Amino acid sequence: MSSAHRLRARVYCVGTELLTNASDRHGPSLAARLDAAGLRVVERRLLEDDRSLLEAAMERALAEPGLTVVTGGLGPTDDDLTRDALASAAGVELHDDERIAAGLHERVKAWGREEASERVLRQAQVPEGATVLDNPVGSAPGLLFDKGASVVLLLPGPPHELAALLDGGALDRAIARADELDPDAVLDAWPRRKLILTGMGESSLNERIESLVPDEMVLAILAGQGRLSLELKARDAAVLDETMTAVKKELGRHVVSDDGRTLEEVLVAILTERFESLGTVESCTGGGIAAAITSVPGSSEIFKRGLVTYSNDAKQQLLGVPAELLAEHGAVSRPVAEAMAVGGRLATESDFCLSVTGIAGPGGGSEEKPVGLVHFGLSLPDGTVVHREKVFEGDRGQVRARSVAHALDLLWWNLV
Amino acid sequence: MSSAHRLRARVYCVGTELLTNASDRHGPSLAARLDAAGLRVVERRLLEDDRSLLEAAMERALAEPGLTVVTGGLGPTDDDLTRDALASAAGVELHDDERIAAGLHERVKAWGREEASERVLRQAQVPEGATVLDNPVGSAPGLLFDKGASVVLLLPGPPHELAALLDGGALDRAIARADELDPDAVLDAWPRRKLILTGMGESSLNERIESLVPDEMVLAILAGQGRLSLELKARDAAVLDETMTAVKKELGRHVVSDDGRTLEEVLVAILTERFESLGTVESCTGGGIAAAITSVPGSSEIFKRGLVTYSNDAKQQLLGVPAELLAEHGAVSRPVAEAMAVGGRLATESDFCLSVTGIAGPGGGSEEKPVGLVHFGLSLPDGTVVHREKVFEGDRGQVRARSVAHALDLLWWNLV
Repeated sequence: MSSAHRLRARVYCVGTELLTNASDRHGPSLAARLDAAGLRVVERRLLEDDRSLLEAAMERALAEPGLTVVTGGLGPTDDDLTRDALASAAGVELHDDERIAAGLHERVKAWGREEASERVLRQAQVPEGATVLDNPVGSAPGLLFDKGASVVLLLPGPPHELAALLDGGALDRAIARADELDPDAVLDAWPRRKLILTGMGESSLNERIESLVPDEMVLAILAGQGRLSLELKARDAAVLDETMTAVKKELGRHVVSDDGRTLEEVLVAILTERFESLGTVESCTGGGIAAAITSVPGSSEIFKRGLVTYSNDAKQQLLGVPAELLAEHGAVSRPVAEAMAVGGRLATESDFCLSVTGIAGPGGGSEEKPVGLVHFGLSLPDGTVVHREKVFEGDRGQVRARSVAHALDLLWWNLV
Repeated sequence: MSSAHRLRARVYCVGTELLTNASDRHGPSLAARLDAAGLRVVERRLLEDDRSLLEAAMERALAEPGLTVVTGGLGPTDDDLTRDALASAAGVELHDDERIAAGLHERVKAWGREEASERVLRQAQVPEGATVLDNPVGSAPGLLFDKGASVVLLLPGPPHELAALLDGGALDRAIARADELDPDAVLDAWPRRKLILTGMGESSLNERIESLVPDEMVLAILAGQGRLSLELKARDAAVLDETMTAVKKELGRHVVSDDGRTLEEVLVAILTERFESLGTVESCTGGGIAAAITSVPGSSEIFKRGLVTYSNDAKQQLLGVPAELLAEHGAVSRPVAEAMAVGGRLATESDFCLSVTGIAGPGGGSEEKPVGLVHFGLSLPDGTVVHREKVFEGDRGQVRARSVAHALDLLWWNLV
């Protein structure tokens, strides 16, 4: 290593059950913490409980300068192999730690057993040279090990045990140690800026900002379920701010916030400031818009009532949608969406009222009204009503999630 | 390799933006597809757009028998390095593929440009010996490469391009090739069984089934947001069925389904079969229970109306909760939850009605009524009402999600 470089980090999560399920809870949050602390996270891995695979991973971790954080595989069962793999890869022996063993005997006594079994006592084994990090809520301690300029931090997999170790400063100690051992490395928390966006897609966002973002910046676009945000990181805060100004100018009112607040948070804040209230009357989203609005702390200031009018009956009785309108145009139509919004404003006693009626699928579509067709209404304080119509792609869940995002977007363009 | 072993698979997702955000969309689904096809997924990685890191990963992929599926890093920009890293690691040259280049020139002409730039043409480079897999919706083709008993499949990262390549059979071709090259490997889709559970936690589940599941089976427990499920895989279907029978017997009515159906799906099915309907009246969950129920296709058969009564006013006017009750006990109390359920059954014109009122936080708690306290009511067709009270841990979102799951659980125990 000749010149200054950002201290590198890797996150390895161990456990066969992680591989084929979308259940990697630890990887993203550990990586985000390391990134925020100024390390450069270059790799995340999910690894099977397999001895040779874990050994190869540990060899790699010990061959590279920087910090590797490993979760899982420290328990008492036969497929808890992380500790052994580290010792083998490092070429050191495991020794029994008497203090940990005493604690394990205590724990099993509390459960009414005589003494800790051989299996349980495996958790008292410590690779020669490793530092033990006490686990206040479980049996397997964390272990901090280094060799050359490589630091490896082993942490237990159960979420509350991991949280306890992190609260106890395990990560900070490991970062400090890695920083100490790699004198050329810098802990360099790049300044970052985030924009929450609405009313545009990933590809049009990409097109519009492509030429504005210099290559040396890190641009991340997060998209899904009708939601969109971008994050920019750069070494130089001044250049970053300049770029952000240009990006914000280009995107205009598509920018909902630059402080991490979500669309629903900003909408609740605007309405709260104006002493105005919002009601919702929903068909195909089935309460999803109300749930999104009330996910915001303090939303009770502006949201008093929502109605899920799933049947035609409910639309007539609760919202006063005329039976003739439903008969003539069908429940999924512009006139019904508008009548729902107007009637819903009265029924929910609110200043604004969002309505939605659509065909979420999988069944119920026709050539004229395909699955994914959704009509939106928004009644305004002056009694007028705004309408929008969309055809969303995707399955029932995606159509519903996109409808929720789109309803909030409709309110956005009529508020700001 | 001496004896039969399951064909191994690895999934590598390339892209700096993936590392510090929880946005690994491809990894879990590719791993699940490989697993279902009978491969043993031993590792998943997320890798930065870094030349030496990618080369090391490709070296590893080429050193191990089995299949490595790589997504991302095939585009035209300077940090699209996957193709180059594979060629370097394999020690082969890249050559220009005239057919791909012609296609790229066509594409840019459609956008009104003269001809493809140098950068764009990088996507026409093919490592010597690789098979080109056409990309019908984007510019970068997939590439299938093998060396010894190792097969590497490179796929583009944009979701719709990846989907198009998979629909075109890219994965099947790669699996077939890996199977062909590793004669000792078996494609062995282990039979699997899944149980959806309710009304218990991860640790008590673990304790109750630990001794029933033989070591050689693969047990995955998925828990989160008040939801719980388990999956068992085993080589031998007869042994698996035997174990599942024992597990189901042990867990009794905690088992919601053994066919993958969720709690809401089963509840909707039971009510539909009995011609009974459900209404919801929600405070702290703000529409989340209605949204969960209506997420089920066909739920309109049993769900007609839901009310989000966020304010005391709404509870009085829409549900007939007496003002005195609210004044005496507060909105978050057993009497109010019960009155909401009883009044809600009439207001929603339903046979059953679920009510929920609680303190989701972050503010609003007291010593007597802490954040996380939630009261549930369920009115039954005979007019009686059932009550439950819980204190949930976690932030606002977690309290709300757990409350939704718990309300469904309350209905479950009163239906079956």
